[in-house]
Amino acid sequence: MTAPASNDALMEDIVGLCKRRGFIFASSEIYGGYNGFYDYGPLGVELRNNIKQAWWRDMVQRRDDIEGLDSTIIMHPNIWKASGHIDSFSDPLVDCKESKRRYRADQLFFAPVILDGENVGYVAFVEGTDGASIIKRAKKLRDNLDKKQSKLDEAALSSDHTEFTEATDAQRELTLAPDANKVGTLTAPRAFKLMFETKVGPLADDSAVAYLRPETAQGIFANYKNIVDTGRVKIPFGIAQIGKAFRNEITPRNFIFRSREFEQMEIEYFIAPDADWKALHREWIDTCTDWLVSIGLSREGITEDIHPEDKLSFYSQATTDLMYQFPHGEQELWGIACRSDYDLQQHQKHSGKSMEIFDESSKTKYVPHVIEPSLGVDRTLLAVLTAAYTEDEVPNDKGKVEKRTVMKFSPKIAPVKAAVFPLLKNKPELVEVAEKLYKKLQRRWNVFYDASGAIGRRYRRQDEIGTPFGITIDFDTIEKDGTVTLRDRDTCEQRRVTEAELFEFLEEQIDG
Amino acid sequence: MTAPASNDALMEDIVGLCKRRGFIFASSEIYGGYNGFYDYGPLGVELRNNIKQAWWRDMVQRRDDIEGLDSTIIMHPNIWKASGHIDSFSDPLVDCKESKRRYRADQLFFAPVILDGENVGYVAFVEGTDGASIIKRAKKLRDNLDKKQSKLDEAALSSDHTEFTEATDAQRELTLAPDANKVGTLTAPRAFKLMFETKVGPLADDSAVAYLRPETAQGIFANYKNIVDTGRVKIPFGIAQIGKAFRNEITPRNFIFRSREFEQMEIEYFIAPDADWKALHREWIDTCTDWLVSIGLSREGITEDIHPEDKLSFYSQATTDLMYQFPHGEQELWGIACRSDYDLQQHQKHSGKSMEIFDESSKTKYVPHVIEPSLGVDRTLLAVLTAAYTEDEVPNDKGKVEKRTVMKFSPKIAPVKAAVFPLLKNKPELVEVAEKLYKKLQRRWNVFYDASGAIGRRYRRQDEIGTPFGITIDFDTIEKDGTVTLRDRDTCEQRRVTEAELFEFLEEQIDG
Repeated sequence: MTAPASNDALMEDIVGLCKRRGFIFASSEIYGGYNGFYDYGPLGVELRNNIKQAWWRDMVQRRDDIEGLDSTIIMHPNIWKASGHIDSFSDPLVDCKESKRRYRADQLFFAPVILDGENVGYVAFVEGTDGASIIKRAKKLRDNLDKKQSKLDEAALSSDHTEFTEATDAQRELTLAPDANKVGTLTAPRAFKLMFETKVGPLADDSAVAYLRPETAQGIFANYKNIVDTGRVKIPFGIAQIGKAFRNEITPRNFIFRSREFEQMEIEYFIAPDADWKALHREWIDTCTDWLVSIGLSREGITEDIHPEDKLSFYSQATTDLMYQFPHGEQELWGIACRSDYDLQQHQKHSGKSMEIFDESSKTKYVPHVIEPSLGVDRTLLAVLTAAYTEDEVPNDKGKVEKRTVMKFSPKIAPVKAAVFPLLKNKPELVEVAEKLYKKLQRRWNVFYDASGAIGRRYRRQDEIGTPFGITIDFDTIEKDGTVTLRDRDTCEQRRVTEAELFEFLEEQIDG
Repeated sequence: MTAPASNDALMEDIVGLCKRRGFIFASSEIYGGYNGFYDYGPLGVELRNNIKQAWWRDMVQRRDDIEGLDSTIIMHPNIWKASGHIDSFSDPLVDCKESKRRYRADQLFFAPVILDGENVGYVAFVEGTDGASIIKRAKKLRDNLDKKQSKLDEAALSSDHTEFTEATDAQRELTLAPDANKVGTLTAPRAFKLMFETKVGPLADDSAVAYLRPETAQGIFANYKNIVDTGRVKIPFGIAQIGKAFRNEITPRNFIFRSREFEQMEIEYFIAPDADWKALHREWIDTCTDWLVSIGLSREGITEDIHPEDKLSFYSQATTDLMYQFPHGEQELWGIACRSDYDLQQHQKHSGKSMEIFDESSKTKYVPHVIEPSLGVDRTLLAVLTAAYTEDEVPNDKGKVEKRTVMKFSPKIAPVKAAVFPLLKNKPELVEVAEKLYKKLQRRWNVFYDASGAIGRRYRRQDEIGTPFGITIDFDTIEKDGTVTLRDRDTCEQRRVTEAELFEFLEEQIDG
C-alpha cells in the first residue's frame, strides 16, 4: 500500500504514467523536445483545471474578502523597474570554458580533494550527485596529477560540501568542473537575467523592450488602485490571480517542478499597517495548509520552513514556506510572505499615483501592508501526483491477488469523476441502459464510458488514471430493481445503489 | 428597450461601464496604459472564466469525440518554421516619414483629390474615418497647392476608395498621409513580422530565438501524435485547447477586439481524407452558431461570411466566418476553416515523424484532414457585452418610471448569479436569515450580498453588472412562511418562492 521507497524510481514511475496515459508530455516532442517546457494532455488538462477551479472557488468565490483579477502577461516595462526585477531578478551563472556547459552557482557544490593529507584541489558537482560519482571525479583529479598511489580522504569529500557561490578565485582555479578534464575551467559567477525579453510595437529600438512576467503578483499591485476605486473593498482584503509566468531558468529540472513556463496562483492580502500581521500570517499559513489537505495531500507530508530573519529582504517581515515531500526531495510548495508596504510604495513612487486607501473603521488613510501566499499550479499538480501514486495488490475477477497502479486523487480534483460500464458489450439491453446513464452523468461531470474488455481490465484502466468511482450496469439493473453497482477505487468495495442514491453520493463526493 | 443607435456611443458606453464596474481595465493604467493590452477586473474575470468553462464543458466534456489539451505558449521554433509562420506571418506596414506614425497598409485607404476635373493628388485615411474629415484633408491638400479657388470633386472623394496596398509608387508620391503636412511622406508597404520574439536558455545567440505563439492551433498539431498514441481516439475526432496567444499588431484597436495579447479557444477536428467534408463543415458552422446562441447572442445577429475560393490559401478547401454586429461594425467572431491535411503534412515533413493514423473502420492508414473552428475569448466577451448592454425604463420603488442600464447576460455566464438582500440593514432578524441563505448559496455559485442603501438602488447596482436574480428577505420571510422574494432582472417581476423552489430554479437556470 505504499509508494516505492526509491524516490528516483517514483519520479520515473510518475513521469512514465503521465506520458503513457496522456497527463503530461514534453513540449514539442516530435521536434526532439524543448527543455523546460511541458504540455498537458487530455487528463492533465482536466486535473490542472480542477486544481485551479478548486482554488478559485475556495479563495475567491466562497470568501467575501477576496477579489479576482486576470492581468496580462506582457505589461508596461516600468512595472518591472518599480518592482526591482529589471535590476536584480537574476541567478548566479557559472560557465565551464571546456565543456561549454552552464551551471547555477547556487546549485553547484565543491568538495576538497585531499591526497595524503594535502588539499590539492576541488571537485565540483551539481546538487543531488551521489557519493560514488564524487569519489570517481576526485580520483580523476588524482590521476591528472599523476598521484595514483596517494591516499584519498573520502570522508572530507563526502562531508565537506560548499556552495560554489562561495568559492574563492584560488579555489575556483583548482576546481575540476563536472564535465571537464582539466581543472580551473569554471568562470566566476555572474548575474544572469531571468526575465524573458521581447519587443512590443512596430519600432525595434530599446523603447520597445518588454518582458514576460516572471510572477503574477506585480499585475495585482498594478491593478490595486483600479480595484480599490471600482469595488467596495474594505481593509483587510485580497486580490487573487491565476496565470502563466515565465522564467529563463538556467537549469530547468525535476519534471514540472522547475520549468521555464509555469502557472501561478497568487494572492496579495492587504492589511492595515498596525494590524497584528503575525496573527494574520499564521492564519494564512493554516488556510493554505488546510486547502492542500482538502485536495488530497496528507497533513503529515506538509512541513513549515521559516526563513531566518537574516536571510529576508530588507523590507520583508517574515516568510514561511510550506514544504512538501516531492519525489526529488522536500521542496518549497507554497510561499507565504509578509512583504510590508514595499511593493505599493515602489509603485507609488514610480507611477506618481497615490496607493493610499481610506480605512472606514479607523478613519485614517494609509498605504496598506501585504501578505502574499504564492503557489505554483504545476508544483501543486506534481504534489498531487506524488500523493496519489500508489502501487498495491487487490483481488481480481477470479479472486486472485493482482498488482495494480492506482492514482488516489481526491474526487474533487480527479480528472475523470466516474466511469460507466455495461457488464457485457454484446448485450444491447445493458448497453442501452449504460449509455443512457452515461449521457445523464455527462451533463453534470466529466465521466467516461467503457464497454471494451473484461470488467476487471476496465477497472484497472480507470484505477491508473485515478477515476474514483466505477458504475456497472448488469443484469440485476435491467431485470430486477434498476440498481447499479458502485465500486470504490481505493477499497475496491462494491455496493448496489439506486440512480437517485448515485447522484446524491456523487454530488456530495465531487462538489461537496 | 434597445441599445443606442450610434455605435461609437455604444462602444463608449460599454468601455465606460467595464471600467466603472470592474470588468475591464487598460493594462498598466497607473503607468499611462500599454497599447493593445487589457486586464480583466473582478467581474471581467468571472465572465471570462464562465465563457471559457461553458465552451470547455460543451465542446470537450459533454462530447465523446473531443480531447482537451493545454500546450505551452513558447514551443520549439521549428514548429513555426513548419507552420509557415516564420516565413509569412506578417502584415503590410507603411511608415510616414513626416509624422513617424505607422499604418497597416490594408487598413489604410486613399481617395483621389480632383480639382476642376484634374486629379492633382490623393488623401490617405484610416478605416472608419468620416467623410467630413476626408474632405477637410483634401482641402488642406488644395491649400498646399495654392488652389483655394478650385472646385473640389467631393463625390469622387467619398466614393472612390482604394486600399493602400494597391497604391502605385506614383500615387504614393502624390498622397497626403493622415497626420502629415506634405505629400509623398508614406513609404511603400513592407512585411512586418507579427510574432513576438524572445530568447530561451542561457545563450544569447540566434540558436536561442523562440516565439510567443500567435495561435494555439499549432500546439494541437504538435501534440496530435501524442494524443493518437496515448488515447483511444477514433476518426473523426478533435483536439481542443484554450490559451493565450500573442500578435504584435501594428494597430491594436476597438477595445478588446484586436489586442496584442489575447486568448483563443480552438479545435482541430480530424476527419478521413475521403469524408464528406462539406457536410462536416456545415455541421461545425451550425454547432458554433448554436453555441453562441446558448450563451446569449441572438441568432439573427450572427451572419455567415463565406470566403471566396480565389481568396483561400492553396491548401484550404473552404472557410466560413461567423460574423457578429460589434459596436464598431460587423466583424469576424468565429472562423471555421477546412484546412485539408496541410498542417499535419508540414509537421510530418519537418519533424520526420509519421502523422498517419490507422482507421479501424476502413482498415486504412492516412494523414487525416482537418476542420478548424477558431474562436477568440476576448471577441466572444465583447460580443456578449454588446448583446447584453441595454438601456430601458422600469418602475422604481415609488412606482415612477426610471431609466436604467442593464446587462442582460445569460444566467449561464453572468459573473454574479444572484444577489441576496435583507430588506432592511438594521433589523438583525432579517440580516441573520439573509446571511445564512447567502452563505448557503455561496457554497454553490458566485453570489453577492448587499445590505446597504434602498432596495431599489441595490437592484440598480446589480442590474448594471447583469446579475440575473435578486433575492430579498423581508418580514414575510421571517414572520410567515419562510418564502423569499425572487426578482427577475429583465422583467423586474417578483414572486415569492420557498428555499427549495429557489435552489431548483437557480440550478435549472444556471447549470442547465
